[in-house]
Amino acid sequence: MEMANEEPKTVPQQITMKGGDGPLSYAKNSSLQKGVVDATKGMIIHAIANNLDMDKFCSQSSSQTFRIADFGCSIGPNTIFSMQNIIQALEQKHHENNHGNSSTILEFQLFFNDHSTNDFNTLFKSIPPSWPYFVAGVPGSFYRRLFPKSSIHIGHSSNALQWLSKVPQEVVDCKSPAYNDGSIYCRGIEKEVTKAYIAQFEKDMESFLNGRGEELVNGGLMVILMGGVPNGIPLSHTAIGKFYDLFGSCLLDLTNKGLVNEEKVKSFNLPLYFPSAKEVKELIERNGRFSIESMNEITEQLKRGQPLPNAQNCISHVRAGFEGLIKDHFGTEIVDEFFACYANKHLQSGFVFGDNGVDNTLMFMILKRI
Amino acid sequence: MEMANEEPKTVPQQITMKGGDGPLSYAKNSSLQKGVVDATKGMIIHAIANNLDMDKFCSQSSSQTFRIADFGCSIGPNTIFSMQNIIQALEQKHHENNHGNSSTILEFQLFFNDHSTNDFNTLFKSIPPSWPYFVAGVPGSFYRRLFPKSSIHIGHSSNALQWLSKVPQEVVDCKSPAYNDGSIYCRGIEKEVTKAYIAQFEKDMESFLNGRGEELVNGGLMVILMGGVPNGIPLSHTAIGKFYDLFGSCLLDLTNKGLVNEEKVKSFNLPLYFPSAKEVKELIERNGRFSIESMNEITEQLKRGQPLPNAQNCISHVRAGFEGLIKDHFGTEIVDEFFACYANKHLQSGFVFGDNGVDNTLMFMILKRI
Repeated sequence: MEMANEEPKTVPQQITMKGGDGPLSYAKNSSLQKGVVDATKGMIIHAIANNLDMDKFCSQSSSQTFRIADFGCSIGPNTIFSMQNIIQALEQKHHENNHGNSSTILEFQLFFNDHSTNDFNTLFKSIPPSWPYFVAGVPGSFYRRLFPKSSIHIGHSSNALQWLSKVPQEVVDCKSPAYNDGSIYCRGIEKEVTKAYIAQFEKDMESFLNGRGEELVNGGLMVILMGGVPNGIPLSHTAIGKFYDLFGSCLLDLTNKGLVNEEKVKSFNLPLYFPSAKEVKELIERNGRFSIESMNEITEQLKRGQPLPNAQNCISHVRAGFEGLIKDHFGTEIVDEFFACYANKHLQSGFVFGDNGVDNTLMFMILKRI
Repeated sequence: MEMANEEPKTVPQQITMKGGDGPLSYAKNSSLQKGVVDATKGMIIHAIANNLDMDKFCSQSSSQTFRIADFGCSIGPNTIFSMQNIIQALEQKHHENNHGNSSTILEFQLFFNDHSTNDFNTLFKSIPPSWPYFVAGVPGSFYRRLFPKSSIHIGHSSNALQWLSKVPQEVVDCKSPAYNDGSIYCRGIEKEVTKAYIAQFEKDMESFLNGRGEELVNGGLMVILMGGVPNGIPLSHTAIGKFYDLFGSCLLDLTNKGLVNEEKVKSFNLPLYFPSAKEVKELIERNGRFSIESMNEITEQLKRGQPLPNAQNCISHVRAGFEGLIKDHFGTEIVDEFFACYANKHLQSGFVFGDNGVDNTLMFMILKRI
């Protein structure tokens, strides 16, 4: 039985995408993210060719097994494509290193990580049966340790690190100066709200880097893709900010209709923070466990690579990504109503993803464990 | 759309226990198997104390990580208890080896393996949040390779190896001399039927031993628990045989009622073989990758350790274990009817597990990778 809970709810959250493989699932509504995977394939091959000392691993451990982990993999199919890209890069490099004459056969063990509430059943079913790799699913938050010491050669994380481990307590506390009145996300305008979100982001990034720092072998690479904002631009001025404004306004509509408890809306914020490249760079340098081998912002490249999705696709993507959050906070009974409201507003307003506000950045980083 | 398929169906089968954690799930209906786990705890501690050279691993790889894999783990909670027992044994041995003065902290990485259709979501949710171990789920049949070369220190398999990778083709082929007319399992009486089942069992055991032979480190241990028959006793004379007779008779009842297609029943056999200790011993020796450190039959010990379950518990256990098989072969619509029929017969006949026919054996083996 669920009771109205008027306490701010900022317990650690297990954000996961919608499971299964039905028409509303993330598996069927992740083509936007697939565009990113495709756009970065060449960059991954280039990064591994230039930054990874493969021979070092082989001679160090006399093993030909490469262990690759995807942190925040969700349920596919994009994680499958990403893993495939990394393997291709490793095989290509191995081939070139040995001028095609190596007798060593590489073995790959792939670890798919996400929260234990992630739909691993669907993920496992989507793994190609013909894959000649060893696979494993690893349940748990990537803001803690997930693997033994020095056991991973390549880490990967795509579109995941902007999700915080929890909403900062203060922003849903009416009595706090950081109370985020009238908004569901960190707009980047209100100083105290932003400070609270930054503090949580810094803490989470530190946990992530410390965890991966223990788990990656010396010289191992982290391939990170994450959403952000251009330096100095508040999120509310960007395309993603405009989307959250539209999204949040649906909650107010449902409150006005008496369908959602006002207190529930007040205690709802998104556990998301979109940093600038400058902020991320500083955090990695301060942490000190990784060197930044490369860091690019790839918006334009992406835009050239894929057409903007149509409105109906957008709406399905939004539901696949946010249904779990809405359900957890407001209850199952409101989910359909909420997304019907969202779809309506999206269509009526002629909202176009990536065509409202300033372009968001997508940071592509290669870090090396030092 | 499912069409009546009159061809014998002996494609590789993904036998999995009933998922979720509802009243009919395996998670809630596996106390019989739990009795086995409890009964063998002391034996596992003893086996690891006597047969494992822990120092060898540490010096070999200069790593303090122990990798443990459970082959055919199902969805818990028994696999959790088994893993805990093995870890306790390793920690105890480590403590004794170092007279309690070791500064080395052991890290454990636990791999839970079962078919990709196993309910890993339920399994992951049942892992204690406070567990200080690294966990991973590994989807796939254990009759093929699942892990990189020399990457596992302890393998475990409980109540799984009697499940074959598939039903031997001949036993469901009316034209074959090995056609298993009027029975759904290998009774151990009909020579040709038995020969076909034995051939499949030998092939599967060979695949299992070859796979684990590659995956286990030199000196690593396999802890195996599997059901069997006393040397020279056909399965049909044992308690398990009596149960399959009862189980199979329900299919005939449903056929007589016109609820199940007769051809479907003719093409149904259980992908199960219960070997004698002698057969298993010979197969392991012939394979040559493992030495048998110990091999015990533990029926009596088990019986002392646990009371016989009541009829209702038995019926639930049977459904948790066999619902998937019935559903796959006969379709969802017949499942409730079938198990209602089974429950009825079980109660009417006063059937008591373990109290009809000759006792089955439970083999407990410790194998060492040589």
